[in-house]
Amino acid sequence: MKKLVLACAAVCGLAASLPAAAQFQKPEDAIKYRKAAFTVMATHFGRLGAMANGRIPFDAKLAAENADIAAMASKLPFAGFVEGSDKGDTKAKPEVWSDSEKFKAAAAKMQEEMAKLNAAAKTGSQDALKAAFGPVGQACKGCHDNFRKE
Amino acid sequence: MKKLVLACAAVCGLAASLPAAAQFQKPEDAIKYRKAAFTVMATHFGRLGAMANGRIPFDAKLAAENADIAAMASKLPFAGFVEGSDKGDTKAKPEVWSDSEKFKAAAAKMQEEMAKLNAAAKTGSQDALKAAFGPVGQACKGCHDNFRKE
Repeated sequence: MKKLVLACAAVCGLAASLPAAAQFQKPEDAIKYRKAAFTVMATHFGRLGAMANGRIPFDAKLAAENADIAAMASKLPFAGFVEGSDKGDTKAKPEVWSDSEKFKAAAAKMQEEMAKLNAAAKTGSQDALKAAFGPVGQACKGCHDNFRKE
Repeated sequence: MKKLVLACAAVCGLAASLPAAAQFQKPEDAIKYRKAAFTVMATHFGRLGAMANGRIPFDAKLAAENADIAAMASKLPFAGFVEGSDKGDTKAKPEVWSDSEKFKAAAAKMQEEMAKLNAAAKTGSQDALKAAFGPVGQACKGCHDNFRKE
């Protein structure tokens, strides 16, 4: 069994010797993870925006599906802002760590607005989707302005 | 409202003119998305492996959480293998498209085994987690062997 697990871990690009306490073996793994989670979130959030403003046809089922994924993904990236992951292939500003309470509040605000957008998407109303989309975008922007380099 | 949506889209790195029919504006967006979804899946799947083989302590609640995310993420990447996304920053073999039925079957097999792993993680039993982990890894490997370049 152990051999199989190690083989699986190697196949799937996973660490074979993750330290007991660490969620990520290396800072670059944490950076890659948080960017990936943001990419997934932004892709599905973008489709909601396209439906909200009519660039693609509104489809209640698709809106609900995309909102579910965006809401789930919104919970993930922040675990990747671990200590030591301020260097490398990242646009994160030092304030993520030096003003971490404010960063956490900004993350929570986005997650809260995304949860409202998810609820709005479930109503089947394009108007509800429109109304809930803007505040999420503003929460994205607020966090980017303060915590992300251009 | 429209101005705000466009501003939000720009802020979050989204396309401002997504074609009505396309899920992704450019092939490279599809490639970036599928890799991101695989990264999220592999990160959480890796933690289940670490718990299954004792590299990190087994924690039933954490196992259930990680399995939920891995199972959700397992449904996402395959929408990114769109026509025209065989070139660029990808290890996908041409067989993804030339033998697409086999590729879809391999994807479905992985999703099926991941769903079983998710159910196993919910039992709170480390042994159940161990037993269900291997088949997912084998499904990963089977697909990589046939459809992914070294």
